[in-house]
Amino acid sequence: MITGKNYVGNTLKAAGNRTFKTFNPQLNTENPWVFTEASQEEIEEAVTLAHQAFGIYKNCSGLEKADFLNAIVDEILALGDDLLVQYCSESGFPMGRAEGERGRMVGQLRSFAQMLTEGSWVQAAIDTAVTDRVPAPKEDLRKMMVPLGPVVVFGSSNFPFAFSTAGGDTASALAAGCPVIVKSHSMHVGTGEMVASAVIKAAQKTNMPEGVFSNLVGGGTTLGASLVKHPLVKAVGFTGSIRAGRALFDLASQRPEPIPVFAEMGSINPVVFLPEALAVNSQKWAAAYAGSITLGAGQFCTNPGLLIGIKGAELDKFLEELGQAIEKIEPSCMLHPSMKAGFEEGTETMLSQTGVSKIAAYKGDTAPNYGVQQILTVDGKTFLENKTLSHEVFGPVSILVQCNDEEQLLKIVNQLEGQLTGTIIGEPNELKEYDKLIKAMQNKVGRLIFNGVPTGVEVCPSMIHGGPYPASSDSRFTAVGIHAVYRWVRPFSFQNWPNELLPPELQNENPLQILRTVNNIQTKSQIS
Amino acid sequence: MITGKNYVGNTLKAAGNRTFKTFNPQLNTENPWVFTEASQEEIEEAVTLAHQAFGIYKNCSGLEKADFLNAIVDEILALGDDLLVQYCSESGFPMGRAEGERGRMVGQLRSFAQMLTEGSWVQAAIDTAVTDRVPAPKEDLRKMMVPLGPVVVFGSSNFPFAFSTAGGDTASALAAGCPVIVKSHSMHVGTGEMVASAVIKAAQKTNMPEGVFSNLVGGGTTLGASLVKHPLVKAVGFTGSIRAGRALFDLASQRPEPIPVFAEMGSINPVVFLPEALAVNSQKWAAAYAGSITLGAGQFCTNPGLLIGIKGAELDKFLEELGQAIEKIEPSCMLHPSMKAGFEEGTETMLSQTGVSKIAAYKGDTAPNYGVQQILTVDGKTFLENKTLSHEVFGPVSILVQCNDEEQLLKIVNQLEGQLTGTIIGEPNELKEYDKLIKAMQNKVGRLIFNGVPTGVEVCPSMIHGGPYPASSDSRFTAVGIHAVYRWVRPFSFQNWPNELLPPELQNENPLQILRTVNNIQTKSQIS
Repeated sequence: MITGKNYVGNTLKAAGNRTFKTFNPQLNTENPWVFTEASQEEIEEAVTLAHQAFGIYKNCSGLEKADFLNAIVDEILALGDDLLVQYCSESGFPMGRAEGERGRMVGQLRSFAQMLTEGSWVQAAIDTAVTDRVPAPKEDLRKMMVPLGPVVVFGSSNFPFAFSTAGGDTASALAAGCPVIVKSHSMHVGTGEMVASAVIKAAQKTNMPEGVFSNLVGGGTTLGASLVKHPLVKAVGFTGSIRAGRALFDLASQRPEPIPVFAEMGSINPVVFLPEALAVNSQKWAAAYAGSITLGAGQFCTNPGLLIGIKGAELDKFLEELGQAIEKIEPSCMLHPSMKAGFEEGTETMLSQTGVSKIAAYKGDTAPNYGVQQILTVDGKTFLENKTLSHEVFGPVSILVQCNDEEQLLKIVNQLEGQLTGTIIGEPNELKEYDKLIKAMQNKVGRLIFNGVPTGVEVCPSMIHGGPYPASSDSRFTAVGIHAVYRWVRPFSFQNWPNELLPPELQNENPLQILRTVNNIQTKSQIS
Repeated sequence: MITGKNYVGNTLKAAGNRTFKTFNPQLNTENPWVFTEASQEEIEEAVTLAHQAFGIYKNCSGLEKADFLNAIVDEILALGDDLLVQYCSESGFPMGRAEGERGRMVGQLRSFAQMLTEGSWVQAAIDTAVTDRVPAPKEDLRKMMVPLGPVVVFGSSNFPFAFSTAGGDTASALAAGCPVIVKSHSMHVGTGEMVASAVIKAAQKTNMPEGVFSNLVGGGTTLGASLVKHPLVKAVGFTGSIRAGRALFDLASQRPEPIPVFAEMGSINPVVFLPEALAVNSQKWAAAYAGSITLGAGQFCTNPGLLIGIKGAELDKFLEELGQAIEKIEPSCMLHPSMKAGFEEGTETMLSQTGVSKIAAYKGDTAPNYGVQQILTVDGKTFLENKTLSHEVFGPVSILVQCNDEEQLLKIVNQLEGQLTGTIIGEPNELKEYDKLIKAMQNKVGRLIFNGVPTGVEVCPSMIHGGPYPASSDSRFTAVGIHAVYRWVRPFSFQNWPNELLPPELQNENPLQILRTVNNIQTKSQIS
């Protein structure tokens, strides 16, 4: 079923001469399939096809694009359990996670299809002419969102379904009207190929232009760099490390024509435990956080890597309980030996810093690629003085920072880089008491959580998955929820354009019955 | 009345040791006032004050910010004719233009005040909790737009009021909740100081925190670069040349923490004249375009620098009529001798290219800094082969490109860089006939005009003033209209936050009665 080839438009191609394999971390062995890296000619062809497809695809109606997205869902589901088995063999995740993440992937596609069917997302705004205005008449102006052009999507390592081939970036770009070229993540290119085959089938069944989707394979950085630098590529979506995301951002910014890059680059997701909450509920929070830290072997962008509290009996008790809870959880398999190596190296680096000590770790034996969870601790002063301690370590490790007082806690929050999330564990009255701290935290994060865990990113319009740099490369957008579509569109105005030649979204009759801003009023009414 | 100093927060300071003067192009002489460039310490102080003010200003209510903006209007109008006289002495523009542009400046401030008073602009989205959802409960999530932080605004040369000290960038950033540091344009720093004094008075009268606004003076590039590189600055607004805008974009992108730059960098605003329209109405369009080309001495971002038509009797007639109309218009004064020199040099460069000829120019005598308008022409093939001919020349000159046929016309449009505007002059039936051409033009521009002139940028929600690079540095935003506010804000989510501690925009009771998206429905209703 796996060919190991690239989808260059609708055609499977493998003209390149470099090959590689994926790895099954559960079995600790290479998978059998051989993948051929895209050649420069194949890259060029995929981009050219995307550019040509854009000329047609951008003019597809919302309903046509919705049909395409829904057809992708059908084709993905038609792959059945084979797809889930493939996912597990290239990620080490269990079947339950595979099934859950497939649900998330198809749910995202469906929510964008629903957004397209409803239609108001284009933010139509109309100001009608005032021909007798003095000193000059007012012209008729009508605005709506239009797609940017071909988008390159980089699959993530940790979400082979939900943030890869047909994940959130692809779904939102296709919804916007942008053709997509996926740079498949090398750890799970087989899963990527299967999902890509579903997208291609859906494109053909719904008569989409060839080139609306391509799926390219590459082991190193050449493929990604070639795509980002290509003049016909108009935007980039990425989920991964700060180092890789920043490299792509720099390449895109330095082009003769700079293009937008939305890179979601993860974070350490600080969690502040306020004293009263710990006094009342330390056991509950210890259990919840032991679960959150180890979920998916700690390989979530929203993994809580940094826990902060104020020294005292409550914090001591919490730390002990967290340690006990952590020791009891069975470790799970990491995505790849290189992930485990990175996790162990990062943890070692943390532990080698002066003042850092290990509080607890799972003590039993584990299979080769399993991530052994750990809790470290350090005092506030040492943390403030050593930047290494606020670097992300991708995997099941968290460091608990013990502050002397509220002032030091505030200093730490103010010194943090941008984060996807920040969490406050507190009693309601403590939120008022620690108002300064909470305001400081707001400046640093995209999502602020009260009495919860940061893992678990709901897909809905009010979700922000993004945040100040380096959590993302542009805090003005989100990677999750239907508003993710706004990364790939631009506003466009028609002035004095004949009504019958306008897109239906802007015609007087409002044939799509969408919500529009007409002369400053939000309305679904016709214009008479 | 003019002190020549910097407003560092509310205080006038001039500790620097470099000074300069402005120039009166009508009188062809230096103005008397001496301006002192901001010192590094003053720059540092202004940014620090802005950062501190942000902590307070971002939490001001919409009504408080609206009061501030309306107070700026009052204080600007209270300056009376003195301000207009100052404007004229530093721009060479006549009183009528001064008055009109002041109207535009205060109109923009008022429209943002109105937006803040109404309140729905924050795009509140709420998804309420579903505690009994299986397998996991759904958390309560509430999102709204929040300000990015201190914004640096670069005043433009050609709009001393509407795109400078208290112009569109400043008004939209203040509306967003961002303190503003203006880098005053050196050609009209006196005008800038007067407007700044109005902003400072308004800030004091409405109890805004010191640092919410500063106005700095500098002659070279040091001030601008220092501001853009400062770690506490979070975004940049710019209107000016591609060279300067790109330099700022590069500085901002290369920071350890990259920040968004919205640079509006002008364009040549292509206008296509279709044959039937010229057959029917060439005289009318010749008159309209002679007016548009020479308006404001051609010193508009939307000046039509590139006219395109298909060879034939109609185009010959139009070119003759345009030439006659151009010759009859009295030239007007340009902003500065350096502007006139740039205009003349650019026109000379165009004329020195093989195949370019001058069709018409004003032939009478003019005062020293007046721009003598000209119409050039070239054939389509030559234009396609020589990139120099599609560079912007800032001033009253346009080149008419004579194409062999529709195919060549299409090739020219496809080869264009991004533009603020594109215009089609045609009979309604020609729009259908030239569908390919129009679709190609749509890919290149922010605003597409039918049977009109590109000059005249209406301030309303459906206006786009922006466009694909290099018309702007990010086509996803506009510089004009209330949606310009979205350049300076980011979405922010509260998860599971206590109702009474949420901002009013997100509280169940909807106390501000704004339009919100609640569980996917747009409504002003309360949440029960």
